[in-house]
Amino acid sequence: MKNVNVGLVGFGTVGSGVVRTLLGKHRLIEKRSGVSVRLVKIADKNIKSRPGIRLPGGILTRNTDDVINDKKIDIVIELIGGIHPAKEIIIKALTSGKHVVTANKALLAEHGKEIFTAASRFRVNIGFEGSVGGGIPIISALQNSLVGNEIELISGILNGTSNFILSKMTDDNCSFAEALREARQRGIAEKNPKLDVMGFDSRHKLAILTLLGFGVSVKPENIYVEGIEDIDPLDIQYAGNWGYTVKLLAIAKKSGNGLELRVHPTLIPSRDILASVKDENNAIFVKGDMVGETLFYGRGAGSLPAASSVIGDVVEISKMIKSLRKPLFPIQMGANSGVKKICGMNNLATRYYVRFSAIDKPGVLAGVSGVLAKNGISIATVTQKERKKGQPVPIVMLTHEANEGWMNKALAVIDKMPFIKKKSVKIRMEI
Amino acid sequence: MKNVNVGLVGFGTVGSGVVRTLLGKHRLIEKRSGVSVRLVKIADKNIKSRPGIRLPGGILTRNTDDVINDKKIDIVIELIGGIHPAKEIIIKALTSGKHVVTANKALLAEHGKEIFTAASRFRVNIGFEGSVGGGIPIISALQNSLVGNEIELISGILNGTSNFILSKMTDDNCSFAEALREARQRGIAEKNPKLDVMGFDSRHKLAILTLLGFGVSVKPENIYVEGIEDIDPLDIQYAGNWGYTVKLLAIAKKSGNGLELRVHPTLIPSRDILASVKDENNAIFVKGDMVGETLFYGRGAGSLPAASSVIGDVVEISKMIKSLRKPLFPIQMGANSGVKKICGMNNLATRYYVRFSAIDKPGVLAGVSGVLAKNGISIATVTQKERKKGQPVPIVMLTHEANEGWMNKALAVIDKMPFIKKKSVKIRMEI
Repeated sequence: MKNVNVGLVGFGTVGSGVVRTLLGKHRLIEKRSGVSVRLVKIADKNIKSRPGIRLPGGILTRNTDDVINDKKIDIVIELIGGIHPAKEIIIKALTSGKHVVTANKALLAEHGKEIFTAASRFRVNIGFEGSVGGGIPIISALQNSLVGNEIELISGILNGTSNFILSKMTDDNCSFAEALREARQRGIAEKNPKLDVMGFDSRHKLAILTLLGFGVSVKPENIYVEGIEDIDPLDIQYAGNWGYTVKLLAIAKKSGNGLELRVHPTLIPSRDILASVKDENNAIFVKGDMVGETLFYGRGAGSLPAASSVIGDVVEISKMIKSLRKPLFPIQMGANSGVKKICGMNNLATRYYVRFSAIDKPGVLAGVSGVLAKNGISIATVTQKERKKGQPVPIVMLTHEANEGWMNKALAVIDKMPFIKKKSVKIRMEI
Repeated sequence: MKNVNVGLVGFGTVGSGVVRTLLGKHRLIEKRSGVSVRLVKIADKNIKSRPGIRLPGGILTRNTDDVINDKKIDIVIELIGGIHPAKEIIIKALTSGKHVVTANKALLAEHGKEIFTAASRFRVNIGFEGSVGGGIPIISALQNSLVGNEIELISGILNGTSNFILSKMTDDNCSFAEALREARQRGIAEKNPKLDVMGFDSRHKLAILTLLGFGVSVKPENIYVEGIEDIDPLDIQYAGNWGYTVKLLAIAKKSGNGLELRVHPTLIPSRDILASVKDENNAIFVKGDMVGETLFYGRGAGSLPAASSVIGDVVEISKMIKSLRKPLFPIQMGANSGVKKICGMNNLATRYYVRFSAIDKPGVLAGVSGVLAKNGISIATVTQKERKKGQPVPIVMLTHEANEGWMNKALAVIDKMPFIKKKSVKIRMEI
């Protein structure tokens, strides 16, 4: 049996998991797939092996070209992350006829079209299951299993750090800062957690899912993003009392106004299955016209979950290599399924949770609700705490569906009213 | 572009969904996959078209041989269900070099090995995503994405009818009979719901998942099965008060005593994500050594969800047909991953919920707990309702982990005690 030869660039956290698996499970993989997958080269700046891994001699190199230019290597696994030099390495590998497996969400979100086009042009395959949702096979589901579906909605908890923090704030009624501290202690948050908690990581992943699900290529910076750093435990509590849970959702949704693309904290009904996704887990909810509502759940990060996806890609491409007569089909990037435009945030129509901090005196509620009414916003529920002398009290509302542009206009007016003591809080709802 | 030609046997509920999709989404599928999939023949006893479907002329036939013997047909879709003549049709199609797509769980559970062996021998592919979990891509996940994982546990809600009934009993505190009546009215339960509520449908599906996940071929009749028909709303309530939910689970689990294979009502913690799977939905929980805990959720039945999976299989095989140099690899049936034996039910070690109906008089609790203790069963929680004069009262317990053989022995002794008025209830727990 002919081997399929694999070279790895990037011997970090995920890379170690991949190496461990390719070496330790060589026989299991062969039995399952009929292919002998051999790891023949690893490029990394640090050319010592990693704890617990015994590498065959001479397999480690500092020079990525040793992988890319090695004629006997069929598949290059890129796991260094970031845009440069990952992009150059991948393009070079594709150009020289090698298949590529990567988990690089930032790169695919920013330059996916260019990379996928290169793969098609040089008639090689690119696997990237590890780029979204760690070990969850969401890419394969969108590319293959759900191929007959018009996708109507993708709504995902795509960032484990943020979900851990929100779960913690919900369960322990603690502040964002306290929850972040615990996430750091447990190794769930990075030293600089901005990319995660401000929603940028989710946005990258949403850009990839949007391409696959809707055939729409969108620059991440054109996706609306709002993080969880300003979420107050008070809002989580109010939401909970009304039967809602706060989650950081990444949403791609067909609506009358085009394709909605947005990442922001969201109130969802607590009995929703997405609401039961706790801690650092990820989940992606997909609604298709045939399959109906589906959900894919699992660990969104970590060495082995991501390695699980990388190995899945490597084995699938290996099976193909061994049975191909002619070049592969261009990578399935979704087909634009009738999306004519991206819906601008001002055209969004959704329900809102809003909280005002007001000095409690006669006429306050009338003032606030008058402005809302004038802007076409109708209130579904309202609650106001008892007054504390001289202290601002929260007035909390759930609205019916309203236009986001009008909502922003109303809030701008209300925030200037003399009895309003803080910027009002607005959290979108999905029900 | 060369077409891939598809013939369908069985123009029923799922068949109609498949036909509708192949005709109505021909262009979408072509854009996404690069393959033009053409439906060229449909065999069914009823050779009228179905409501809302306009078929090309001459496509319908009464004779399945018109599909199997048609040289230009590349893929045969079998959707008649049942063992005969589905088995003969599939074997004939495979033998004549045609690829096969089927959603026939009973057939694959009973004769999977023979069918998969035939597919390998004649070097064609067989797709069966629709056989388990309707539109949920669990087969593909086990065959491909999770190929690097040693699977430790598969635990699924695999029958929509049973899950609907249990959800209804839980939410509305009604009896099995009442919930079944509503399921029938809504078209969720068949006229004869035995296969569903007695666990046989789940058992078929578990046999298929066991083959894929553990590489172990097991006859369905060798899998322990217990249905939901005797579940009392009282037990659901008690479980709920202790923070547990009752679900019909199909479990394949590696343990010290071999591979546990069992289908039965189960208490699971209500905060588990499986517990939030309501109504007629299905979900499969998979634990792998790399990926950790994952869950796949969606509609387990219905025309379009199953058709979604069938179309996914058809397109994937079509892409392969168009790029194959040599015969395909034998179908991935999992590799036996160290399973030495199936764990007999008497060797099972698990926690239990038990309910006794006893006349409340001094010494009853001492009598019951004495028998349990003598059989090595230790009680974690117990609750006893206040006495009603002359009426039996429920004594309800959760036990610590105990041996099933011993538990059965203890219950047999207890049920013969003079103050016990009804057969005791035992429900296994998974935590």
